Amino acid sequence: MNDLISKAPVFPLKKLALIGLGLIGSSLARVAREKALAQVIVGTDHSSLVRERAEALGFLDQWASTAAEAVEGADLVILCTPVGANKALAQEIAFHLAPDAIVSDVGSVKQAVIAAIQPYLPPSVHFIPAHPIAGTEFSGPDAGFASLFVHRWCIVTPLENCNSQALETLLSFWRGTGAFVETMPANHHDLVLAMTSHLPHLIAYNIVQTASDLEEVTESEVIKFSAGGFRDFTRIAASDPTMWRDIFLNNGPAVLEILGRFQENLAALQRMVRWGNGQGLYDSFSKTRGIRQRIIGEGQETSAPDFGRPHLE
Amino acid sequence: MNDLISKAPVFPLKKLALIGLGLIGSSLARVAREKALAQVIVGTDHSSLVRERAEALGFLDQWASTAAEAVEGADLVILCTPVGANKALAQEIAFHLAPDAIVSDVGSVKQAVIAAIQPYLPPSVHFIPAHPIAGTEFSGPDAGFASLFVHRWCIVTPLENCNSQALETLLSFWRGTGAFVETMPANHHDLVLAMTSHLPHLIAYNIVQTASDLEEVTESEVIKFSAGGFRDFTRIAASDPTMWRDIFLNNGPAVLEILGRFQENLAALQRMVRWGNGQGLYDSFSKTRGIRQRIIGEGQETSAPDFGRPHLE
Repeated sequence: MNDLISKAPVFPLKKLALIGLGLIGSSLARVAREKALAQVIVGTDHSSLVRERAEALGFLDQWASTAAEAVEGADLVILCTPVGANKALAQEIAFHLAPDAIVSDVGSVKQAVIAAIQPYLPPSVHFIPAHPIAGTEFSGPDAGFASLFVHRWCIVTPLENCNSQALETLLSFWRGTGAFVETMPANHHDLVLAMTSHLPHLIAYNIVQTASDLEEVTESEVIKFSAGGFRDFTRIAASDPTMWRDIFLNNGPAVLEILGRFQENLAALQRMVRWGNGQGLYDSFSKTRGIRQRIIGEGQETSAPDFGRPHLE
Repeated sequence: MNDLISKAPVFPLKKLALIGLGLIGSSLARVAREKALAQVIVGTDHSSLVRERAEALGFLDQWASTAAEAVEGADLVILCTPVGANKALAQEIAFHLAPDAIVSDVGSVKQAVIAAIQPYLPPSVHFIPAHPIAGTEFSGPDAGFASLFVHRWCIVTPLENCNSQALETLLSFWRGTGAFVETMPANHHDLVLAMTSHLPHLIAYNIVQTASDLEEVTESEVIKFSAGGFRDFTRIAASDPTMWRDIFLNNGPAVLEILGRFQENLAALQRMVRWGNGQGLYDSFSKTRGIRQRIIGEGQETSAPDFGRPHLE
């Protein structure tokens, strides 16, 4: 589905409530203030350390010590927590939500999030799942920044019979952060992200672990010579382990489907290496060059060599 | 083996001959001029287009239309070609080399390079294989730059009975480019690089190909949502296919050994995903975080989030 909905602005919101103040939640708070997307920005986090740090950083207008308190009177509530926390949060906030409040999230899986949240919310609110494809390998309230979502895509997966005005409000909010928006069914989202995000993370974690376990090659050799390619994988393998545990626990079928295809293709390459099939290897390696150019052309990547890493003198 | 050899400088060389003027050869020419590592820098390339382009870029002092002509009178000859070209080049230059000339290379595999070159060189020259762990995803004479080797490692794999003065000259040359040097046996190099470079490239090519082949997910979706992790893999999958075909044809046993370990570990992660083993996933994902910090600490990677990619406003 493409984004064909009218783009009439409906801003600012009266009160935006952010539950979870890590990389995504704290970036949303910062951009909401910078772009005046809400009159009041309230937030909370289950960790008192994070709440204190966020208060010191000053990107919120109001503080709440619990999610139930934060959502009182909010017209947009966004859950910015690892997806494993959603069910308990939905139960906690259900009876504190204002009528016609929009409840959304930023989780990297959508079918499981719907199953965890939807049953607990009252029919008077609008639950619209969303997922911004943005982030860095850093976590926590210090890691966020206002431009995180600029030129990134936010996928929204409305349920059947979604209220069109509520949907438009959410899409406008995300456009206000600088993101592009697209809507699609939750099951399609989960397959697309299994390919573009979940499998790459699983592979990156696995290649770093394989390097760590090698007894014939020392860890100091792995580190010294990592500029040969390995270090590219270490970035996403440094991502938050709780977040990624929850993603794999909640998108198993799609990840296993894509992983099966990855393994079939890898077996074919392995056979070419074993049997010295130079033409097959050349053909495979040639096919993959173009996709990076297209990603750069679409503004999703830098064209600078080596990701623009600095080369020191 | 650590680099325990004396660091007495022996520069400049009288004549440096570079065979192959792509990313590595053209970067060596640029840094040799900038740091005055040789009195005369001569080069050639088997492609007349590359020769013309290199001439226009002006980073050489002298031109040669063949490798045989380029090596005449040179005290250091460096083959900067895909490793598959080495055997024919060794045969071509063998009887044109000056007595006591040092012949080296920059190939990403070492045992196969030794087997391809060593039998054809006269005993009057010093053959010392080397491999700088440096590069970008770009190829050709326009892609090179003088600081490519700064703070990168160059692994030198001297043969038995290597002339110590010739070895010191080569190590000093590489230090002169800004590189760190380390010596080790060729077979150990090939295993270390299989892990830190060859497997990562094979996996990157494979993940990009898996994405390209998916019929349920469109290529435009893969491109739009690539910031979720996938785009990190597309950089090294955009590397030169001829170079990488030759690497896999010439380091098969080491690559297959490391690939086997990768696949065993991946099967274990796959099982954790299928059976919902959250603790196992969390433990695996936690172990891999530290290695990136160590790579950054050793100056082999930027500490900036997202590789320092620009975030546009």
